[in-house]
Amino acid sequence: MENDLIYFITKHFVERMTHFKTLEYIKNSYSSRICQLTEEKKAGKKIVGTLCLFVPDEIIFAADADRVILCGGKNDTISIAEQYLPRNICPLVKSSFGSVVNNGRSGVKSCSHFGLVDIVVAENTCDSKKKMYELLGDYVPTYVLDLPQKPDSLAAVKYFLEELNKFKGVMEQLTGNKVTVEQLKKEIISSNETRKLLHRLYDLRKTDSPPISGVDVIKVMQKQYVLSAEDFKKALRSLIDEAEKIKADFKTDFTRKPRIMISGCPMPGGNTKVPEIIENRGGIIVVEESCTGTRSFWDLVDESKDPMTALAERYIKIPCSCMTPNDRRIDNILELAREFKVDGVVNYTLQFCHGYNIERYKVQQALRNAGIPVLSIETDYSDSDVEQIGLRVDAFMEMLS
Amino acid sequence: MENDLIYFITKHFVERMTHFKTLEYIKNSYSSRICQLTEEKKAGKKIVGTLCLFVPDEIIFAADADRVILCGGKNDTISIAEQYLPRNICPLVKSSFGSVVNNGRSGVKSCSHFGLVDIVVAENTCDSKKKMYELLGDYVPTYVLDLPQKPDSLAAVKYFLEELNKFKGVMEQLTGNKVTVEQLKKEIISSNETRKLLHRLYDLRKTDSPPISGVDVIKVMQKQYVLSAEDFKKALRSLIDEAEKIKADFKTDFTRKPRIMISGCPMPGGNTKVPEIIENRGGIIVVEESCTGTRSFWDLVDESKDPMTALAERYIKIPCSCMTPNDRRIDNILELAREFKVDGVVNYTLQFCHGYNIERYKVQQALRNAGIPVLSIETDYSDSDVEQIGLRVDAFMEMLS
Repeated sequence: MENDLIYFITKHFVERMTHFKTLEYIKNSYSSRICQLTEEKKAGKKIVGTLCLFVPDEIIFAADADRVILCGGKNDTISIAEQYLPRNICPLVKSSFGSVVNNGRSGVKSCSHFGLVDIVVAENTCDSKKKMYELLGDYVPTYVLDLPQKPDSLAAVKYFLEELNKFKGVMEQLTGNKVTVEQLKKEIISSNETRKLLHRLYDLRKTDSPPISGVDVIKVMQKQYVLSAEDFKKALRSLIDEAEKIKADFKTDFTRKPRIMISGCPMPGGNTKVPEIIENRGGIIVVEESCTGTRSFWDLVDESKDPMTALAERYIKIPCSCMTPNDRRIDNILELAREFKVDGVVNYTLQFCHGYNIERYKVQQALRNAGIPVLSIETDYSDSDVEQIGLRVDAFMEMLS
Repeated sequence: MENDLIYFITKHFVERMTHFKTLEYIKNSYSSRICQLTEEKKAGKKIVGTLCLFVPDEIIFAADADRVILCGGKNDTISIAEQYLPRNICPLVKSSFGSVVNNGRSGVKSCSHFGLVDIVVAENTCDSKKKMYELLGDYVPTYVLDLPQKPDSLAAVKYFLEELNKFKGVMEQLTGNKVTVEQLKKEIISSNETRKLLHRLYDLRKTDSPPISGVDVIKVMQKQYVLSAEDFKKALRSLIDEAEKIKADFKTDFTRKPRIMISGCPMPGGNTKVPEIIENRGGIIVVEESCTGTRSFWDLVDESKDPMTALAERYIKIPCSCMTPNDRRIDNILELAREFKVDGVVNYTLQFCHGYNIERYKVQQALRNAGIPVLSIETDYSDSDVEQIGLRVDAFMEMLS
């Protein structure tokens, strides 16, 4: 017993030490990224801001532009946004809009990425984003990709392909660079490498004793579209090496924590409220069915096909709740629950996100039919419900233990 | 002065008497419509339920099916819906879903149109409807038309045309009838006749002394997709005759009421809360920029073109807030304000309708730039805010007087 305890403490200490380097680098990479973007901009490179997985990085990179995500996860810019947007829409949309507006205000000193973008490439996913983009156009050039909402027809893929081709044209015009088939193929291979690395990282979490916490993985995933593609890939390799080393050194399963899947809305940088509550209250998050999780990397782009067609086919299948029917997401949740040996699912939604909130019914139904307990949490970015959520999570953990 | 008063009273008395016949017929036509639908169904006719202007009647009628609208405007089925749907979505979606679910429940005796439909033909407009339709499929066969959200490209019209062609196939399969070009052309001409009649009715409201109240017109418009196309057209002709007669008999402008445009969300049958408040507090509604108003009939279908193309081109241009950018709606509001000599606009939105609620900013901006006062009201189907809205409307009327 005593030995176990010493072993446990040592293990955690060593884990922390080993983790430290790459995790801390990723978590603290924001300011160096700002410098990088500023330098790139000075050298004439164009910076594209995105807010969604449906905008293919590959096309941006093939035009030799850089990309940074604009999704807001912080509460502090929401009040600014509420001068323009209704209060009863989702915090992600308000926070993102507030960040851009705040940055554009005269007299406001800001050292963030929001002021660095040359163009926002947006997409028609949910009502709130779609309509918010119309207002965003007053502050920064905004191009909107249309998205068919019924992804399962050939006509839908064709329409999306046309939209991607137009977007390619916009990138060519912005950068003055021709997007070639070769360049696209190269970028697809490179992005697929990142996707495969993320699969490797997530594979480690399928084991009985995951070498990394869910909150840490989410913080890594939050940087996926902040860091440059190359820096993210490099950091990921190093992180996986460290995690694999921990796994090899410490084979024993010390923890018997309930294995949790968090499923639902995105969790952009600044927003780890619910994951933190879950892991502080005794759970271990082993997988995120989320844009800040599996949805971003689960499917690869087919490298053998015409690149634009392959991109259209892969991206349109992202199981966002904006799609209908969205059985692909339900199937994926059940598949993840099996693969990651999940004890319970926290269905996490942002307040007023109609898509994920209505889809909750089908998610709960499917999980209950599969005998997997589910706790649904709808929240915003404020701290006012932390205790209340904590109590519900406590009860859920007790049920799972 | 005394003569004026006698004249005023007589006019109103005669108006009421004259109106009585057609208006009362339309308002009370629901039960006879139920009988009609029941008889049709017995005779083998198929009944299609719709919830949106984007589903072209012409295709349904060309397949010799009948159509009835399922949009709910009543509060009483909302609590049933909230067993399946989140509370914080729009009342229209909850009310509609609740009506269908309620009707399908065993033991519930119902004499409504919700149980009569063979198929619901739905459409991807807003998030809440889109996701609600997935649940509706458990209660009634539901077919969903996809809708591009950027209506201004050729590719979008082409995609929508493909969707309409698929929908035509669904109607042919449902009814066993081939939808011919001739039949479609006939139905387009017929629907255009109704649209022209509605233009005539609305033209009468452009005059200094509109012969019909806004609430009455809204109640007529609420029956547009409840009644059979022929019955509605017949009633409309008779109503216009009566209204024209009133105009001819009573040329003097007695009223100096503020002329109001109500602009925004649909007002399905059962929901006239805000229009009633406006007219009870001294305003006269002269035009509704709404699905229960101009959006349903403003543009005709081009009779000279291939009918399916003409339908795609006309319907995709309906300026619903689900479209982006939606300058067509803003332009239309300004045009209507001029044509109907509007003193003020009530921007009417349903609670949690993100589309119209976010678009409010642009609407207000455009109206203010045009020097037209605007009052924004966001509400649901309950009566709890009647007094509060009343006070705000009072202040608005005072400002306009």
